[in-house]
Amino acid sequence: MISVQQASQFFTDHLRLNKATLNEAIRADRDYPPFDRVMMDGIAVAFEAFAQGLRAFKVEGIQAAGEASKILTDKKSCLEVMTGAPLPRGCDLVIPYEHLEIVSGVATITRELERERFQNIHAKGSDCKQGEIVLKAGAAFNGPHQGIAASMGVDFNLSRSSKILIISTGDELVEIHQAPLEHQIRRSNVYALKASLELNGYTQVSMDHLKDDALAVAQHYEKNAPHFDVMIYSGGVSKGKFDYLPGVWMEMGVTRYFHQVAQRPGKPLWFGQDEKQKTLVIGLPGNPVSSLVCLHRYVIPARKMFVKLAEEIVFKNDLTFFVPAKLDYNADGTVWASPLKIKNSGEFTALAESDGFLELPAEGKVFAKGEAYAFWPWRNL
Amino acid sequence: MISVQQASQFFTDHLRLNKATLNEAIRADRDYPPFDRVMMDGIAVAFEAFAQGLRAFKVEGIQAAGEASKILTDKKSCLEVMTGAPLPRGCDLVIPYEHLEIVSGVATITRELERERFQNIHAKGSDCKQGEIVLKAGAAFNGPHQGIAASMGVDFNLSRSSKILIISTGDELVEIHQAPLEHQIRRSNVYALKASLELNGYTQVSMDHLKDDALAVAQHYEKNAPHFDVMIYSGGVSKGKFDYLPGVWMEMGVTRYFHQVAQRPGKPLWFGQDEKQKTLVIGLPGNPVSSLVCLHRYVIPARKMFVKLAEEIVFKNDLTFFVPAKLDYNADGTVWASPLKIKNSGEFTALAESDGFLELPAEGKVFAKGEAYAFWPWRNL
Repeated sequence: MISVQQASQFFTDHLRLNKATLNEAIRADRDYPPFDRVMMDGIAVAFEAFAQGLRAFKVEGIQAAGEASKILTDKKSCLEVMTGAPLPRGCDLVIPYEHLEIVSGVATITRELERERFQNIHAKGSDCKQGEIVLKAGAAFNGPHQGIAASMGVDFNLSRSSKILIISTGDELVEIHQAPLEHQIRRSNVYALKASLELNGYTQVSMDHLKDDALAVAQHYEKNAPHFDVMIYSGGVSKGKFDYLPGVWMEMGVTRYFHQVAQRPGKPLWFGQDEKQKTLVIGLPGNPVSSLVCLHRYVIPARKMFVKLAEEIVFKNDLTFFVPAKLDYNADGTVWASPLKIKNSGEFTALAESDGFLELPAEGKVFAKGEAYAFWPWRNL
Repeated sequence: MISVQQASQFFTDHLRLNKATLNEAIRADRDYPPFDRVMMDGIAVAFEAFAQGLRAFKVEGIQAAGEASKILTDKKSCLEVMTGAPLPRGCDLVIPYEHLEIVSGVATITRELERERFQNIHAKGSDCKQGEIVLKAGAAFNGPHQGIAASMGVDFNLSRSSKILIISTGDELVEIHQAPLEHQIRRSNVYALKASLELNGYTQVSMDHLKDDALAVAQHYEKNAPHFDVMIYSGGVSKGKFDYLPGVWMEMGVTRYFHQVAQRPGKPLWFGQDEKQKTLVIGLPGNPVSSLVCLHRYVIPARKMFVKLAEEIVFKNDLTFFVPAKLDYNADGTVWASPLKIKNSGEFTALAESDGFLELPAEGKVFAKGEAYAFWPWRNL
């Protein structure tokens, strides 16, 4: 049995999954802003005239957004300018309407303030120069990123997400729309795993089901391994009589990196890789909480988060302990995790209120209120 | 001009948007677990026999997962049981293989431990009883929620998301696949706003564009208002000569809740509601950073987050100041926000590295390093 840190290292070394992120870096197609851009509605004047004491300017016309730059013909005049318009040539100061009175075609400054050259003007190229990288490859899809890409006229082309097959195993499982007999349950695990993968950027996830039959498992593996980057099995990796998955995989040429991790829940976790096909094989425990915890801890990369324990947890086993919890952001900038009362790792319904789970290291026995530990969210920020 | 708190209250009072969340509460279709469920691979015995000192049990057979409950015929025997199997009748203790040796059909306990009735058994109905609510209406889509719904055989039916139309305005804008002239820019804003809405649960978002023409705006409004819950305009709400949107809306029967908020960026924000159609009308400033900030601060409900300032910010205006920032989760359970160096609110490309924005209240001038303030993420946890 290896430690959580060792297991994690195996995944770091061998798991090469692509989320759907930005394919290639996006470079600025021109300077941004592409022109000296007016930032306030008002008038544009020559700074020189203002500096020399002029406070009343004849209005020569209007410079609207979407029009090519007009030209100020007389340095002692002005042009009315609209936010977003290109600065008229000959002007280098914008004075907002709030500081003006315009009567009979003459704009008079009513508020005496210090003003400087280029005030209220967003200078051409001041955000970025043509050719500069504005969005790195691998950027996730969000509002600002989509806006930046669109402003460069570039499609936010997402890289191909890794192809993942999630396979439920176990003769006790029936389809989710079926009415189970008393001793049967619905195969809900794969739906949970698929939702988690999709929500975190993996967009090519398929599902399958296998009966407890070693030959069928082998044939299914042979047929599918060439077409998937990862095959994730749910169930069939414990020590039970019908847990022959690891045996089948190894017969099929999958090298085992490890089996069993010193953690609760999720001890039976299995990880390996097909020598020939390079397909990664992950055996998750069949129990719903364990399988989700293992998926989020090892397979879905999360941003590193640390949170404070809202109450003491005593755990007397020499295992890393994963505890589903609910987060609260305190007004002082600390984040607190309230552990859910889960009686055992099969208690799926208790997860409804959780935001993710705490990772309490194997070293401790009493985890005190206020101490901070790593936290893995169901949904990344 | 109203305060951010007042503006926020107007949105709280009048904005009734539905995200795509769980339609109706889901109730347990039967007890969970639906049967006394074996939690370890091993043997099931009658606790009474164990308590009376018996340590070697004849194996009567195997109880697999997916089989109906078998019956233990002799109290001094046992059945091998697999994780997930129903507990055989007559048994009330499971002893794992790790504590056993099985030779010639007899399982002998090799590890003397205190054991109690129902150990390693997940009792029927211990997670929840039939009819109990297991997932509340309004639950967001995530892995655990999807799994809980699937295990009850219920489709995770999402409620209809509100219908939102985002409209760009401004003659300086061209389509994103067009090559803009020097004084033109691409209409990227609406793409950013749409991405943010979609990423945060609003799945029915359409886009449109309008030229700077009051009559066209009025006709477009008349035609579309009956079909949308919200119409969000980007641009055209400043004080400029071509910012006639507020006038048109009010002519069309839209009651203005407010125009202008004491904030930077985003001062020109406009909010109102159609008396007859009940359509909400939101006028966002045209500048990309401002429009995204207003959308996330007022329209997209976020979970309340507080984060510590990683460096001092001095802001000498009597306005609420929104500052794009990057988050770091410190190992002590505190979250730190590093403000991005943004020269002005038009600088869209600088947002690439941000996770959201800080809200610094209008009261202060110097916001000291280490102080905590509200934070609005681009993507909710």
